[in-house]
Amino acid sequence: MQSVYAIIMAGGAGTRFWPASRRARPKQLLPLASDPKQSLIAATVRRLAPLIPKERVYVATGAHLLEATAAELPDVPRGQLLAEPVPRNTAPCIGWASRVIEARDPDALIAVFPSDHHIADEAAFRATLEKALETGAAAGYLTTIGITYVAGKKHLWNAGMFFFRAGVMRKAIEAHLPDLATGLAQIAEGGEVDRIFPTLPSVSIDHGVMEKASPLAVIKGDFGWSDVGGWQSAWELAPKDAQGNALPEGALAIEAQRNMVRDMRGADVGMRKKVIALVGVSDLVVVETDDALVVVPRDRSHEVRAVVDALKARGDESLI
Amino acid sequence: MQSVYAIIMAGGAGTRFWPASRRARPKQLLPLASDPKQSLIAATVRRLAPLIPKERVYVATGAHLLEATAAELPDVPRGQLLAEPVPRNTAPCIGWASRVIEARDPDALIAVFPSDHHIADEAAFRATLEKALETGAAAGYLTTIGITYVAGKKHLWNAGMFFFRAGVMRKAIEAHLPDLATGLAQIAEGGEVDRIFPTLPSVSIDHGVMEKASPLAVIKGDFGWSDVGGWQSAWELAPKDAQGNALPEGALAIEAQRNMVRDMRGADVGMRKKVIALVGVSDLVVVETDDALVVVPRDRSHEVRAVVDALKARGDESLI
Repeated sequence: MQSVYAIIMAGGAGTRFWPASRRARPKQLLPLASDPKQSLIAATVRRLAPLIPKERVYVATGAHLLEATAAELPDVPRGQLLAEPVPRNTAPCIGWASRVIEARDPDALIAVFPSDHHIADEAAFRATLEKALETGAAAGYLTTIGITYVAGKKHLWNAGMFFFRAGVMRKAIEAHLPDLATGLAQIAEGGEVDRIFPTLPSVSIDHGVMEKASPLAVIKGDFGWSDVGGWQSAWELAPKDAQGNALPEGALAIEAQRNMVRDMRGADVGMRKKVIALVGVSDLVVVETDDALVVVPRDRSHEVRAVVDALKARGDESLI
Repeated sequence: MQSVYAIIMAGGAGTRFWPASRRARPKQLLPLASDPKQSLIAATVRRLAPLIPKERVYVATGAHLLEATAAELPDVPRGQLLAEPVPRNTAPCIGWASRVIEARDPDALIAVFPSDHHIADEAAFRATLEKALETGAAAGYLTTIGITYVAGKKHLWNAGMFFFRAGVMRKAIEAHLPDLATGLAQIAEGGEVDRIFPTLPSVSIDHGVMEKASPLAVIKGDFGWSDVGGWQSAWELAPKDAQGNALPEGALAIEAQRNMVRDMRGADVGMRKKVIALVGVSDLVVVETDDALVVVPRDRSHEVRAVVDALKARGDESLI
């Protein structure tokens, strides 16, 4: 089999994890799943390592996130971090990174992953990847993984993972997104990324390529996948005490059940000892950072967006 | 009328306002009533000023609280802060301070006040004091104020305020607490406070003197008195928004009702901007300090004592 390369898509923004997530520190850079010390993107690269070594891992991120992303992935060669000057959705992202990899290795097999998901059963995940690469991508198909629904199993869920030969994706973009193909060719021929990338059409790989390509290989997968969609999901993934509380070290929960507490203060003040105590409350999310504290019921935690909106409305840009 | 002197009793400890209150920073040193910038003890001295100038205000506190108390009362002459080496309840406290005042002014009229209460109607309060001093203390009675109960008004509530001529209290202690009288006389004759004070009997002025003295003058008072007994009480006294939330400046409450939020971080980090946001929660108390954060339902806020007990149990003395 040809060498396998990974493209990690790490341009994500979003406000569902405010106040932990910010424009300059989006979800993938935060430790939001089961390991309170490992960011989602670091876990993404780690779990691929037995199949795809860091020497063949490429990461596409926003220019404003380049330094923070590099800091999370110290072992990924710096030249393999691709900085998008502006966000243009997933088709330009995947198309550009694929061309960079194809220039290095024309026979490359490429696997694309989101940077901000969680996978519980990593062995099963890697077995699925191998199948997707061998029976799908290596055979010339644009390939995706369909997550089997636990309830009913009548649907397959697209988890944003794609597998293909570099040349197959290039040709699919030429066929279905000719404007994108033209721009990517200009970049491949030495055109300036900062000038050309903003002119690319903003379109998703799903809508722009995968929905139009036929045949498409879909490999079923069942490996405890989660898109870590919000604090509720983070609570479900986190280690919990006997009362269902997910707490930082040293926190106290007295007659308190099923709460999620995160102390995400930065290293400058994070080294200061601070005790967080919950008494008689249940099903709350409490998140503390250096400059913000939020308290919200767990089942309403997606509403932290309203706080971001309110901060925007009053011009509090530094907190967003 | 003779000159009026005040004794402010400021030895209080207690855990009902944890994490804001600590051994080294008890309730009276905190801004827990309607003015978020004035400590209860500073408010106590301020509201007396039209009747009793600071030159005649004495403050009895614990030795370990002397510096912090002085910092809250910069205009009270330092020599009028009396440091009790150990707590010995209110009779030794009042007895000692009264002897100090009597030595300065044998005709002194003395008014004793707790340092950690709130009074809403200060004009009515001062009118009651004048009556207590003129018709009670000046006439030779041990005098107290009976707070009229709003509901039913069948009881009078002893609010810990006492009024007397210096010599009358000295003689009452000689009559009812001879051991205490002996110790106080030794101190008055130049005995070392640090040696003698710990030998004094620990007894309250109510039990040791007032209950035994007869006749006793009781002046009825109705001036919006509160002993600020806990966070519930502090919430009742605090300015609130239209949804009943008592919030620090800049805090956000979205679909949140009747919450109490206090940001009591110290000046070192308190100058850092921090937004506290509540979303979809009601009737909570949220208190943040430099080294602790507590979240508790308002009607269970007295249970923060359990946190203090838990911290003690695990040896976390610095947080108590």
